[in-house]
Amino acid sequence: MSHKLLLLTRENDKYLPLLQQYDLPSLSVVDDQPEHINHADIWLAEPGLAAPLVSVAPQLQWIQSTFAGVDKLMQLRRPLTCQLTNIKQVFGPLMSEYVFGYLLSIYRQQQLYHQQQAAKVWQEGRYTTLQGKSLLVLGTGSIGTHLASTARHFGMRAIGINRRGGANAAFEHVADISQLSAQLQHADVIVNALPHTPQTTRLFDSNMLALLKQNAIFINVGRGSIVDINLLTQFLQQRNDVTAILDVFEQEPLNSEHLLWQLPNAIITPHIAAPSFPEQVVAIFAENYQRFIQGDALLNRVDMEAGY
Amino acid sequence: MSHKLLLLTRENDKYLPLLQQYDLPSLSVVDDQPEHINHADIWLAEPGLAAPLVSVAPQLQWIQSTFAGVDKLMQLRRPLTCQLTNIKQVFGPLMSEYVFGYLLSIYRQQQLYHQQQAAKVWQEGRYTTLQGKSLLVLGTGSIGTHLASTARHFGMRAIGINRRGGANAAFEHVADISQLSAQLQHADVIVNALPHTPQTTRLFDSNMLALLKQNAIFINVGRGSIVDINLLTQFLQQRNDVTAILDVFEQEPLNSEHLLWQLPNAIITPHIAAPSFPEQVVAIFAENYQRFIQGDALLNRVDMEAGY
Repeated sequence: MSHKLLLLTRENDKYLPLLQQYDLPSLSVVDDQPEHINHADIWLAEPGLAAPLVSVAPQLQWIQSTFAGVDKLMQLRRPLTCQLTNIKQVFGPLMSEYVFGYLLSIYRQQQLYHQQQAAKVWQEGRYTTLQGKSLLVLGTGSIGTHLASTARHFGMRAIGINRRGGANAAFEHVADISQLSAQLQHADVIVNALPHTPQTTRLFDSNMLALLKQNAIFINVGRGSIVDINLLTQFLQQRNDVTAILDVFEQEPLNSEHLLWQLPNAIITPHIAAPSFPEQVVAIFAENYQRFIQGDALLNRVDMEAGY
Repeated sequence: MSHKLLLLTRENDKYLPLLQQYDLPSLSVVDDQPEHINHADIWLAEPGLAAPLVSVAPQLQWIQSTFAGVDKLMQLRRPLTCQLTNIKQVFGPLMSEYVFGYLLSIYRQQQLYHQQQAAKVWQEGRYTTLQGKSLLVLGTGSIGTHLASTARHFGMRAIGINRRGGANAAFEHVADISQLSAQLQHADVIVNALPHTPQTTRLFDSNMLALLKQNAIFINVGRGSIVDINLLTQFLQQRNDVTAILDVFEQEPLNSEHLLWQLPNAIITPHIAAPSFPEQVVAIFAENYQRFIQGDALLNRVDMEAGY
């Protein structure tokens, strides 16, 4: 039996030669001509590009997302009936690079020294070390686990938050999400690595934000919906001791008129903390394709009920 | 028998209360009045402050340096005859913070995003990951070992260079210093963590610099004497693909007229990569004092022949 793969990414030119490096029996790759959408049974797709088209794809059996975050495919008017798999495991090291790159930039005063160099000034600052600081990670999957292991390598304490609590060797302690407010008060650094779900939406309300410790750093690499952006902006204006490092937003790009861009205690990046590398995505797709044609269970299946 | 401790640091006000927290039998602490210099048998001192005074200290039996680098006490006209101990082990995590903070800042394009934020521009860059990159560390003591373990945590390869070569579990390979030129050509990042000795002085001459790979990053947290600053400046002007991150200089502060301050591919910091924390220094001193009064061998003794 032959299969048709619809490639729906902004980097099709990178994906095509990579797909050709794998032995993918009985598979032909097609692009997004209307007749192809009709006939393709497998999609390798960015969730945002796939979402508007799934309703006109009667043959579709399986979508391999090129991203970890698949919330755009969870918010359809009619729930997805095909299989959905995503990318997991590969983002931990990239997220650690992003998170600890910015943490060290702040704690070790890189901007101060940058300005001093421009002024040719030799003067010691008063820096902070990561050692002994406390990191609270929301989400204890592969990303949260890697962040925790990096934190502990640098001598931080790492506490995890997830839906059920429980043990995870990378963390000193994992609490369930009902204990978030108790844990927040002790955290020097908070990283949100949770997916978008109804339970995580607006989890950081004004009561929660008010609990942030003096000089806390709030980092969002999960989903923008965890906090209302206007509320966060107001909060950062009042609490200039707190720094927010934000890579994800409900509306991307962030509106160029938004006040948040200008706040000295906000760092804004354009959703680049952990981009998928096509090489890694194609390797996962190839493995899953073998399983698909053999009728085996696919890797990285998204739990439709949990939403990730 | 009673002992007199001369405290010779720029932070005596921090050291004094810390010393009082330890049980240090028969020890009285004195400051640098001339009559005290004459009578003190133990010094807790910064090498640069101690060096001009050791020749007028007839009772001196032991100097506990507050720094790792003791080269200022190795360059005396008459070699030191008392015992000399320094600070080891505690600098690794701080050095990793400095080195990886700057590496991630560069690879993950923090300056680009900083500028884009100021212009309210949302645009993905083309970043590099540490994963798969090669780190060459000169010096395989506690600092080099910690740098290597951090590198490997981030998925880099770590090669060490020391005087004799040999195995060290933190590194994939340790070569002896005669193989530096062969190893340099493969390194994406080079960190100098060597002490100042006759063998390390001007180790990076123009032939060595010429071997640096395209886009290499050279980081100096060891001693300034490893490379002639004017030669390095010339080299960086010619090779603008190379970035130098420099925390140590032969002349500190670096002369404010020096061209190096202005090079876009040089990052200059005022010897802050791994400052000694008085808390850690006093803990080491207290342990050594117990050993001293019991006649036991001191920890962290400097090998006068090797110079570190």
